[in-house]
Order: sequence, then structure tokens, then C-alpha cells
Amino acid sequence: MAHIDLKNDLPGIRGPMAYRPETAKPLNELAEVLLRDDNNTLTRGERELIGAYVSSLNDCFFCQNVHGALAQHYMQCDMQFIDDIKTDFRSTSVSEKLKTLLSIAQSVQKSGKNVTTQQIEEARKQGATDLEIHDTVLIAAAFCMFNRYVDGLATWAPSERQVYIDRAPRRAEEGYINYDLYK
Amino acid sequence: MAHIDLKNDLPGIRGPMAYRPETAKPLNELAEVLLRDDNNTLTRGERELIGAYVSSLNDCFFCQNVHGALAQHYMQCDMQFIDDIKTDFRSTSVSEKLKTLLSIAQSVQKSGKNVTTQQIEEARKQGATDLEIHDTVLIAAAFCMFNRYVDGLATWAPSERQVYIDRAPRRAEEGYINYDLYK
Repeated sequence: MAHIDLKNDLPGIRGPMAYRPETAKPLNELAEVLLRDDNNTLTRGERELIGAYVSSLNDCFFCQNVHGALAQHYMQCDMQFIDDIKTDFRSTSVSEKLKTLLSIAQSVQKSGKNVTTQQIEEARKQGATDLEIHDTVLIAAAFCMFNRYVDGLATWAPSERQVYIDRAPRRAEEGYINYDLYK
Repeated sequence: MAHIDLKNDLPGIRGPMAYRPETAKPLNELAEVLLRDDNNTLTRGERELIGAYVSSLNDCFFCQNVHGALAQHYMQCDMQFIDDIKTDFRSTSVSEKLKTLLSIAQSVQKSGKNVTTQQIEEARKQGATDLEIHDTVLIAAAFCMFNRYVDGLATWAPSERQVYIDRAPRRAEEGYINYDLYK
């Protein structure tokens, strides 16, 4: 049971978002521009993957499953591949560029100060642009917020992973702004 | 020097915000509704203080000084009082209710999962409403994002604390949405 009476029984972040639409609006707009905007050289799958990875580091069940399922949907892979990335992305077949970005995200999850000049240089060597590095840092930082929001209020989440996988195509279609919070 | 070329020499979060206005918009809107909206039973000073406190826990020099100076401005106290709160809020003269909310923020800074039912009960006993508890969790979570954004890109910040104190009244007047990023 959530720490406060959210006046709805929606899962995860959707509970407090429906409870407090004034703050849900900019939160959803941030997710929309960061994770879905078409004017971005990182694919939607790559961006969702960075979010899912940071959520797994923060041990947030709801977020890592929602965004892991979305990454899997966009990347057209299976969930085992997403799980392998969470466990040890360096030993997977994701691109070398994405590995350097996941490494930056891994540092941001601990503290912004943990990002090193060497990590940035390695990302550049693999072809990452300044904008891609910027967005990686902000996606990782934003998930440190979303994860704390979800778990800090002790929201509930469906325990069956298949629920998230089944839901991903609709979420991918609707995006973060236009979906009906109450459905 | 920042990790990426921000194409401006603005301090702290203003650098990446001017670099990437698409993400700055929802970030500023979130700060505006969370920290400044008049329809809130937490004062602006209390909300800025929660942000400054979390920023100090995250060791973010820019954010703790910007928001510490704003808290000091709204609360009409001196910076020593803000520093005392950062060091040990429990031994200061802030209200018992605010102490319970700062305790929740302190937990959120580590992980959302660290917030306990007992902390929530203690906040309620001191008169905190569900909405105040919600906003405290989200403010603390949001600063875990802002701090990582500022430090993860290695932005620069004025080292003189007086700069932040001098600037606070204008920032308080302008708010987070309407100020000119380039000034």
C-alpha cells in the first residue's frame, strides 16, 4: 500500500501522477522530449534502455520493467537481451557507442561527480555527439528522480513481467503525454 | 570546463538549459509548480530548503547555494541558519513538521526505498498532509535529478557564496519560467 492515499489504484508512477496532475504534466513532457522526440540521433530503444538500466541500478521494479519492455519493443529483441544488458552490458552485443553511454549513465546513477573526462573521451571516440552525451546524462538523472518518486511513495506494481511486455506496444503508440492516466 | 561544449558560459544548470531549451522547458515548469506555486501549504522557503538540503547531501555546490540563498531570502534568516540545517536540521529551531519532512527527504536522497512507514507516521503526527508528503518526496527526487544534471556535465559555478545571496531576490521575483536564461 502506498505511503499516502493516492485516491486511485493505478500502478507505479501513474498513481501519484493521477493524484497530482500539476506535477505530472512537466514530468510527462520531460519523458516525451527525452525518450521519444524524433529529432534525436539516439533511437527510442537506446534511450529507453538507458532509462531501464538506471532503473535497475536503482532497483526500481516498476520503472525497469516498464522501460525495459519498451526498449525490447523498440529494439525488437527478447527480454533476456535486456536482462543481459542490465547484468553486464559490456559483454553484450550492443554497439560500442551505446556501451560508452551506458557507462556514463552508470556513473550518473551514483553521482554526477562520478562522470570522468575519460568516459566522455571514450564516448566521443565511439562517435557520440555532445547532444547524445547531454541527453544520456539527463536521462540517467531523470530516472534517478522517477525511481525515487515511485519507490519513495511505496507505490504498488504488477509483479508479472508479462504485464509490462504486453502493455509496451500501446505505450509506444500513445507516448507519455497523450495516454489516458486512468486506463 | 564542462564535459561538452555548451556554447555559452552560463553557470550551473543554466548552461545546459540554454544549450537544450527543449528539455529546459519541462524542467523549469517542474521547478515552478513544485517550488513556487502559491496553491501549496508548504511555504516557498520550506520547499527551497528541502531542495537545498538534498543538494547539500548530493554535494552539488551550485544547487545548494542557489536554493539555500532562496530559502534564506524567503525565510528572512541568515545563511548560517541554512548551514546549520544542512549540518544537523534536528538541532535547529525549524518546526517539528519540517523536521519530519527533511527526514523523509534525507531518505529519498539515498533511495526511495529508504522511506519508512514510521517516517510517514511521524510526519502525519506533526500535521503533515498527504500532499505535503507527496511534494516532499518529489522535491527530493527532483533535486537528485537536477544535482546529477549539473555535476554530470561538469558545469562551472561561481565560487563566491555572496553571488548567490545577491541574486536570490531577483530569482525569487522572476521565478523559474519567466527569467531570461541568458542574463
